[in-house]
Amino acid sequence: MIGLGSIGKGTLPLIERHFKFDKTRLTVIDPVDTDAKLVTDRGYKFQKTALTPKNYKDVLTPLLSEGEGQGFVVNLSVDTSSLDLMKLCRKLGVLYIDTVVEPWPGFYFDDTATAADRTNYALRETVRREKKKKPGGTTAVSCCGANPGMVSWLVKKALVDVATETGVKFKEPKSKKDWAKLMKKTGVKGIHIAERDTQRAKQPKPANTFWNTWSVEGFLSEGFQPAELGWGTHETWKPKNAKSHKKGCNAAIYLEQPGANTRVRTWCPTPGAQFGYLVTHNESISIADYFTLENGKRVSYRPTCHYAYHPANDAVLSLHELFGASGKIQDKLHVLEVNELQDGIDELGVLLYGHKKNAYWYGSQLSVEETRKLAPNQNATGLQVTSAVIAGMVWALKNPQSGIVETDEMDYKRCLEIQLPYLGPVKGYYTDWTPLDNRPGFFPEDIDPSDPWQFRNILVR
Amino acid sequence: MIGLGSIGKGTLPLIERHFKFDKTRLTVIDPVDTDAKLVTDRGYKFQKTALTPKNYKDVLTPLLSEGEGQGFVVNLSVDTSSLDLMKLCRKLGVLYIDTVVEPWPGFYFDDTATAADRTNYALRETVRREKKKKPGGTTAVSCCGANPGMVSWLVKKALVDVATETGVKFKEPKSKKDWAKLMKKTGVKGIHIAERDTQRAKQPKPANTFWNTWSVEGFLSEGFQPAELGWGTHETWKPKNAKSHKKGCNAAIYLEQPGANTRVRTWCPTPGAQFGYLVTHNESISIADYFTLENGKRVSYRPTCHYAYHPANDAVLSLHELFGASGKIQDKLHVLEVNELQDGIDELGVLLYGHKKNAYWYGSQLSVEETRKLAPNQNATGLQVTSAVIAGMVWALKNPQSGIVETDEMDYKRCLEIQLPYLGPVKGYYTDWTPLDNRPGFFPEDIDPSDPWQFRNILVR
Ligand SMILES: NC(=O)c1ccc[n+]([C@@H]2O[C@H](COP(=O)([O-])OP(=O)(O)OC[C@H]3O[C@@H](n4cnc5c(N)ncnc54)[C@H](O)[C@@H]3O)[C@@H](O)[C@H]2O)c1
Ligand SMILES: NC(=O)c1ccc[n+]([C@@H]2O[C@H](COP(=O)([O-])OP(=O)(O)OC[C@H]3O[C@@H](n4cnc5c(N)ncnc54)[C@H](O)[C@@H]3O)[C@@H](O)[C@H]2O)c1
Repeated sequence: MIGLGSIGKGTLPLIERHFKFDKTRLTVIDPVDTDAKLVTDRGYKFQKTALTPKNYKDVLTPLLSEGEGQGFVVNLSVDTSSLDLMKLCRKLGVLYIDTVVEPWPGFYFDDTATAADRTNYALRETVRREKKKKPGGTTAVSCCGANPGMVSWLVKKALVDVATETGVKFKEPKSKKDWAKLMKKTGVKGIHIAERDTQRAKQPKPANTFWNTWSVEGFLSEGFQPAELGWGTHETWKPKNAKSHKKGCNAAIYLEQPGANTRVRTWCPTPGAQFGYLVTHNESISIADYFTLENGKRVSYRPTCHYAYHPANDAVLSLHELFGASGKIQDKLHVLEVNELQDGIDELGVLLYGHKKNAYWYGSQLSVEETRKLAPNQNATGLQVTSAVIAGMVWALKNPQSGIVETDEMDYKRCLEIQLPYLGPVKGYYTDWTPLDNRPGFFPEDIDPSDPWQFRNILVR
Repeated sequence: MIGLGSIGKGTLPLIERHFKFDKTRLTVIDPVDTDAKLVTDRGYKFQKTALTPKNYKDVLTPLLSEGEGQGFVVNLSVDTSSLDLMKLCRKLGVLYIDTVVEPWPGFYFDDTATAADRTNYALRETVRREKKKKPGGTTAVSCCGANPGMVSWLVKKALVDVATETGVKFKEPKSKKDWAKLMKKTGVKGIHIAERDTQRAKQPKPANTFWNTWSVEGFLSEGFQPAELGWGTHETWKPKNAKSHKKGCNAAIYLEQPGANTRVRTWCPTPGAQFGYLVTHNESISIADYFTLENGKRVSYRPTCHYAYHPANDAVLSLHELFGASGKIQDKLHVLEVNELQDGIDELGVLLYGHKKNAYWYGSQLSVEETRKLAPNQNATGLQVTSAVIAGMVWALKNPQSGIVETDEMDYKRCLEIQLPYLGPVKGYYTDWTPLDNRPGFFPEDIDPSDPWQFRNILVR
């Protein structure tokens, strides 16, 4: 296991609970050893090392090739290259899983790079190219956390629900193409990964401090990247600062503005209508890509897909503070641990919109209280991620020769089944909310009244 | 006294402390009697009445004309017409003071009115017209709270500081014209009423609740009005949705967007660079108007002037929640009382920018802790307002025949002298911050690098 941060600490006890393995062979690597006791007390090895482009082969190869059986790298770190680690694992015949396409340090904050270079599109394409170049082989699961990850499974489940309940005639799809056809037939125009984190800290946030319920560094990295979204075929308008890519799958565009300072109108069951931040995520691109239908060279259907994230209130305040200081990052970065939280849930789901029943949210509404009972060392946000890692690991062990895969390409039913006990209430909600509700208010607005589900109506300008 | 809300409750004990008067003659009027005991326990009368356009003359006239001596109306209510009350008082020869030009209900949320009709410019013009029509007479002090109010006195003090410290040769001005000349000579391009409220509640804000440190209704009313600002002669660019007025002083423009959803870049000593909301306020217009220099019919100088308000974090979250729901107001509105607050200060001052020493913030940094020691029934935000009311009352008693006045037209030294014991540290800070600091970041921005102090650089778009 690489990385003993908020996700690593939560994953370790679940690995112990779900898998049988040789205890003497588990090593956790992290340059910071503050929580090493969590590892060594359990009888595992802790290695205080920062993986680098120079040392990663030397550090990992012996750990992964000595002794019997097939190794497994569970990568839950920041500042390491998912692509390089994945390539090494596949070369060594070792299973691999991560929760994000992470680059070596320097990528996210490289001010000599173009905006296009700093996109998740660019990161994802590196993995897709490797998949094309070396199809099949040892399984490496890319981006298998909550989102990216679990939400791709929720999209399929939600689509089946909507198709069924709107009277679409269909057989459960087996192929990518059939899934895309079903989504088109069901009339889905787009998907929000619609999340509301209502977890509240007991103490008020101090000034000059970034508080979040998961990796602050991870959130800042993606938050400073350009806002990105899978770009649907129903869209008739684009923001002026929208750009598309020259190479690759072309499923997504990006905006020349930081995602964490880009607001969109969205909906979750608990708050109802709310602002979310259009932070770039791998799933915005992978889901749009997966559900793309092509007619020869022409794209005949694609849903719009993006993240619409309302983080915990303390993170909202942290962003307001940070962008108010022109992006100067606070002096203290802190992940709120489960015992610092008074209450709240992480309401994380997918909002499929534009179909006959308007919009349907489907997802997990896991609370802090329930999390405390279910698993140690994590808050609700963490458990949604760590349980997805476990599901992905189970799937990889059953499908060890599937090559590089994204979660869209995995068995969603089986994966959700494994995860379910850890997700709290998992429910579907129809809503008649649209981004045009109560608009325009007192002031004229640039909206498209003919189609509520245009991105033009969703983006806050 | 009309209105026993957060400001009324704090003002009453200060009136008692500062003035000698016939106790049997003080009456407090408010339609809500929850806190009536605060009045009656002190031996005053409480009258549970909502003033309306129909009843206000009948309710007030006897209270103000029976018995000996000159009456005094201290208007600290919402939903009453400042203009009508002021006119009645002047007719009866009774002194009058308020903290805002308030209209009868219906004005702020009238969706049949134009944006221009809903501005503070329009409200202020009604009072200015009355002043022109009936010059002199019994004193009525308009808009004498912290802001509008005290900040007009701070502007003069700050201007004298900057002029002195940048080596401008001048004699302390006596007239409006001379004040405007001094500001021009000192090279001030504009003024932010720059406020940071760092008061933190002990409990985290519940969902669907608006928390603020002063009237939520007052804040919502002004927050839904168009963003408004005094428009300086140095500005070379205007937002596309900026509008000017057909009649009146022409010192201000408004934007066709709600002030509480309009962010600007500003600076306060404690946080440094921060976002503020460009909420409309009487002082944005009155200060810009007061410091306007005319050359015949041509305006030869005017500073830009606007509010740049970072309310308490809980109010920031409340706004985010409210605008996220397309302006649907929360079910519960609550003003945080002093014993609900853990700590924090209300840092309220004026930022004079564009001169030789770049920018100078001067103001009050009153803390919750100090407020507890200084006066009962209020938090730091409240005491800055109530002490300004006291200062204005003292001034009115000394100058009972000055007609309708704004705080710009009063003796700033004397007023600040009265207020000073209630303001905590009152200090000046130079800063080399400009709204162009660290910009552009990773993305291209529409800025004017030739003059950091253009509104184009200040407005967040
Ligand atoms: N897909 C999802 O749903 C999801 C959700 C949360 C987090 N994540 C991702 O998971 C990763 C971990 O998240 P977290 O909240 O635990 O982050 P964290 O910041 O709490 O922990 C990251 C850990 O990586 C370690 N690390 C840093 N440099 C390293 C190096 N060179 N070699 C090895 N370890 C190194 C750090 O010391 C730290 O302990 C991040 O990449 C994050 O973006 C994904
Ligand atoms: N200039 C400043 O610095 C400043 C600062 C704070 C507040 N204010 C203004 O002061 C006023 C009071 O602020 P607050 O925080 O005490 O507000 P609040 O909402 O706490 O209190 C307002 C009071 O007015 C009463 N009221 C409502 N309708 C009335 C009517 N028809 N007749 C008589 N009373 C009525 C309400 O019952 C309430 O008690 C507001 O107009 C606000 O905008 C000015």
